[in-house]
Amino acid sequence: MVRVVYFEKEPIIDTRPLARKLGAFVTLSTAELDVLERLYKRKRTFLAGHDLVHQGQEDQACYILLSGWACSYKLLHDGQRQIVDFQIPGDFLGLRSVVLHVSDHSIEPVTDIEVTEVYAFDLLDVFAKTPRLATAVLWTASRDEAMVVEHLVGIGRRGAAERIAHFLLELCARLTLVGMGSKAGYACPLNQYLIADAIGLSAVHVNRVLRQLREHGMVTFRNGYVTFDNYDRTVAFADFEVSYLDQSMPLLK
Amino acid sequence: MVRVVYFEKEPIIDTRPLARKLGAFVTLSTAELDVLERLYKRKRTFLAGHDLVHQGQEDQACYILLSGWACSYKLLHDGQRQIVDFQIPGDFLGLRSVVLHVSDHSIEPVTDIEVTEVYAFDLLDVFAKTPRLATAVLWTASRDEAMVVEHLVGIGRRGAAERIAHFLLELCARLTLVGMGSKAGYACPLNQYLIADAIGLSAVHVNRVLRQLREHGMVTFRNGYVTFDNYDRTVAFADFEVSYLDQSMPLLK
Repeated sequence: MVRVVYFEKEPIIDTRPLARKLGAFVTLSTAELDVLERLYKRKRTFLAGHDLVHQGQEDQACYILLSGWACSYKLLHDGQRQIVDFQIPGDFLGLRSVVLHVSDHSIEPVTDIEVTEVYAFDLLDVFAKTPRLATAVLWTASRDEAMVVEHLVGIGRRGAAERIAHFLLELCARLTLVGMGSKAGYACPLNQYLIADAIGLSAVHVNRVLRQLREHGMVTFRNGYVTFDNYDRTVAFADFEVSYLDQSMPLLK
Repeated sequence: MVRVVYFEKEPIIDTRPLARKLGAFVTLSTAELDVLERLYKRKRTFLAGHDLVHQGQEDQACYILLSGWACSYKLLHDGQRQIVDFQIPGDFLGLRSVVLHVSDHSIEPVTDIEVTEVYAFDLLDVFAKTPRLATAVLWTASRDEAMVVEHLVGIGRRGAAERIAHFLLELCARLTLVGMGSKAGYACPLNQYLIADAIGLSAVHVNRVLRQLREHGMVTFRNGYVTFDNYDRTVAFADFEVSYLDQSMPLLK
């Protein structure tokens, strides 16, 4: 289902995922929200399964995800695919590409998505208007990097069950921040093939581990919904520390 | 050996690694170099092997590395260590920590190092003075993230020999950008234990692979020096694309 956002007449700014997310880092003034608003100029829609950014593409715009889920991935020379991360509403898509000149990855919508297109000079304009927003965008980039680091540690050193539990908890924390989840659970459009490509396991292995996690009373992933049967036990099992994602209060008042 | 930098009387700005590095992204004006200069207020020295940032530490400053090498790593619950990346002169240490409130990793000097300490409000001050520098710092963060993504792909999907060749080529590109290496080679203070913890292999395995790469006439790592016997062949073997690190020309004029 597509969430309706009124752009011209009724900007529902406080419900916009990016404003919510940046608000966790910076207490945004009305003036700053107005500046952020300028990024929402060009709305576009992309269909599930059709790449919106290709690895190697040059001078790419970036996007802010308004609704739906996407994934960023890299193809290796031999055709293998590694999913780097999934993106949820409020996330930038391809922020790296806009500053790195060449996209080092592809982006594919997991569901149909709505995005706002942002060019490098739009960002520069926002940064010029308010350096606090520049710091907030640097924060989102740092948070994205922290997640990739966690995935690196996961693939390098964690067992399969811990890795998947960690993955589901991370999504929970991210979705909670933008009002789309809680410690009870969240709607999740991913299938075992997508999770497999992100975690570095086979789909069969992912299925088996998901069954184990359910049978041990930790977390159930079924019919497009993740339910934590015992959130705290899952956290302890996965050695999950939320601090790299969470701001208990805004850092910049 | 410690590189001497004169702070008060003779600022040798153009030789400073960070200015060189940012200069690849933004053509820096004299006024912008002056603003960047303000970050170089508090010089500190740390000894090899003694952590300067601990995982979990709060409200941490970040640092700009002036001389020497460092590594950032994460300790898992069971005591295993995953090195996330190495830092060379011109790199930020703990840039994520300063915006994420809590450090998600530890930082250890590989050699004795000299750094400049930077607080969150120093960065905010610089961003307020010139948004182009904010974009440049976002670029360095994005570039760091791109490297972690490459490491993730490496550990997830590349073979041991390709992974080590890729690792040595990436260091080459980074060192070349700050004037400390070329396609011929570079001085490298890492040992096989550090490489092993970064690559996700055992030190014995690293040694064996390094010997293979040498015997195949690609690259030799010996006596603290990496020499490319055949740079192009190594690039082809590792499927190394420099575009995620390199700016052929500044993006912002």
